[in-house]
Amino acid sequence: MSDELKKGLEGVLVAESELSNIDGDAGRLIYRGYAIEDLAREASYEEVVYLLWHGHLPDAEELDSFRSKMVPERAVDEDVLSTVRTLANAEEKPMAALRTSVSMLSAHDPDSDADPTNREAGLRKGRRITAKIPTIIAAYNRIRNGQEPLEPRDDLGHAANFLYMLNGEEPDEVLAETFDMALVLHADHGLNASTFSTMVTASTLSDLHSAITSAIGTLKGPLHGGANQDVMEMLQTIDQSESDPIEWVENALEEGRRISGFGHRVYNVKDPRAKILGERSKALGEAAGDLKWYEYSTKIEEYLAEDKGLAPNVDFYSASTYYQMGIPIDLYTPIFAMSRAGGWIAHAIEQYDDNRLIRPRGRYVGPEDQEFVPLDDR
Amino acid sequence: MSDELKKGLEGVLVAESELSNIDGDAGRLIYRGYAIEDLAREASYEEVVYLLWHGHLPDAEELDSFRSKMVPERAVDEDVLSTVRTLANAEEKPMAALRTSVSMLSAHDPDSDADPTNREAGLRKGRRITAKIPTIIAAYNRIRNGQEPLEPRDDLGHAANFLYMLNGEEPDEVLAETFDMALVLHADHGLNASTFSTMVTASTLSDLHSAITSAIGTLKGPLHGGANQDVMEMLQTIDQSESDPIEWVENALEEGRRISGFGHRVYNVKDPRAKILGERSKALGEAAGDLKWYEYSTKIEEYLAEDKGLAPNVDFYSASTYYQMGIPIDLYTPIFAMSRAGGWIAHAIEQYDDNRLIRPRGRYVGPEDQEFVPLDDR
Repeated sequence: MSDELKKGLEGVLVAESELSNIDGDAGRLIYRGYAIEDLAREASYEEVVYLLWHGHLPDAEELDSFRSKMVPERAVDEDVLSTVRTLANAEEKPMAALRTSVSMLSAHDPDSDADPTNREAGLRKGRRITAKIPTIIAAYNRIRNGQEPLEPRDDLGHAANFLYMLNGEEPDEVLAETFDMALVLHADHGLNASTFSTMVTASTLSDLHSAITSAIGTLKGPLHGGANQDVMEMLQTIDQSESDPIEWVENALEEGRRISGFGHRVYNVKDPRAKILGERSKALGEAAGDLKWYEYSTKIEEYLAEDKGLAPNVDFYSASTYYQMGIPIDLYTPIFAMSRAGGWIAHAIEQYDDNRLIRPRGRYVGPEDQEFVPLDDR
Repeated sequence: MSDELKKGLEGVLVAESELSNIDGDAGRLIYRGYAIEDLAREASYEEVVYLLWHGHLPDAEELDSFRSKMVPERAVDEDVLSTVRTLANAEEKPMAALRTSVSMLSAHDPDSDADPTNREAGLRKGRRITAKIPTIIAAYNRIRNGQEPLEPRDDLGHAANFLYMLNGEEPDEVLAETFDMALVLHADHGLNASTFSTMVTASTLSDLHSAITSAIGTLKGPLHGGANQDVMEMLQTIDQSESDPIEWVENALEEGRRISGFGHRVYNVKDPRAKILGERSKALGEAAGDLKWYEYSTKIEEYLAEDKGLAPNVDFYSASTYYQMGIPIDLYTPIFAMSRAGGWIAHAIEQYDDNRLIRPRGRYVGPEDQEFVPLDDR
């Protein structure tokens, strides 16, 4: 037992995991040994979720079977849809609406009473949660825009079906592939705060819905999932100011403001996910004949790299990528949750498989031996 | 940076806190320096919540002001009540229903967009959450029993109003005092798993509703909040078996089963809260002219203390106390949440006041350098 205070738990080793590893010096991220570059470019989100949950990449038959179990789970129960409607009409914020709606999914999950250490039941619940999150996000967005939610399309993959439910039209191949790639890139990332939150909740042997609800609430914070939205709002502010991006950033730094999308507790070099998304952001700009957002981003990146030694993280290029795909800015964090659900569920399964209650110590620094005085004599 | 794995974070010091301290060898628990025995016997739950949030016991004027701000917040919005109705009718489990309903409170909280580090807004949100949880639990229970929810009674204290909303009649003084005492005893307890979960979520600067929703989901697990319900179910099983409690426990131990309500990671002697609740359990039995549940409990306690060196924890006597008060067994954990909300909110405020993102490390033990094979070649 050490008396050293570890307020952020930096460097404290809390788990062994077979899921993902970050080499912060080399700028390398792997999921179960596979380089993120290969997975992003060549595997679908469904393949990557299968890899995380089952330990190997599926062959064609395994993938078919996995998809055929997951696709029919996309629709959400009428009770949940009705709550999504209530939340959207009450102008509840997107991440809060997602937190409440996912929490509510347990009411209609046929396995919600199963022992959480029952792995098969856990996988069924995991498939349902992963399949339903896109439906909830898309329904919420349509309702708040005065549109009716759309039924999921069984013939589309996870990424394309979400874009269809969001926009009401089937996405072209470039959009569907780019979005699928973004989902793969965000699916897991070691023990970040939301993943750790999943584990803390699971460690009391509480259920998977509780664990994922905790994760969504934790991701919601601006120090974690909120950063991609902040990046896009910064790029828009720069655009509206009509100033040079570098001058704008210089001014912001002089005023002591932090530039969103740069720096990471784990990476010392450029986040490999930012590299891949940067390419996609450029491709989308070229296809649209407008490289403005991509060029703002690269100018800021070059300036901060050369002058400040700062490297962009995943949020920096997901912002302009999502923006050019026409996704509403306040859905960037819900989309992060939609992707990371695959990783959260995988970590919950690891926790349940070899559980130990997570209960650290606090150091009491309050008063001792206070004499109680009854209310009448205070 | 140490390479020692701390799977349960045992002994790892993660925070300094002025809220509560447990001396596990002396069997002593204090809230801000005040002995739990004094607070349980002489202070109301509202006084204790004020103490935890504001740092000192309120005088009469401060308490009046605190109550007058909290009492009007007891009613829940029609949207939330409608979701509670849906959940109760769908037979959602009590803790899951509470998790979803509390998560939904943010949709109608006028401070839900406030910066979480804004202490005044945090206190307002904390008062609303604390005031509304009893209303949600009572409404849920009435609806599932085919009764209409009752409006909160402004003339009753936090404990008495809950019992009124639950049962439809004003509780007598003994019941109200006993329940108030139970709320005081459960209000805070160092860095238990649900409190830590509050802190992890708050540490991304996510909002208070997210932090409390995480805590409810974490408390839900049988290794944490679920134990008081397990104790009562054990006492009922013993009663139905018509065997001697000691023989039943001996058999259970021989079969390798754990006896709920005994042992605690922090206490090495009898939990001081169990002492106080044991007295109340006895008093309730005497008043009803039936000491059966109390006597089962003391027999088991004496046997396990003498033969096994095991001491009862708070759950062991809250079980028979709540049971003799006529509270449905599956509401014991929601009542724990109703009480602990005061502590969770106090810890969230401490976290926001001096925040650092909580992000531990994992050790990657999966494969390295896997060669990617495209789907068609697998």
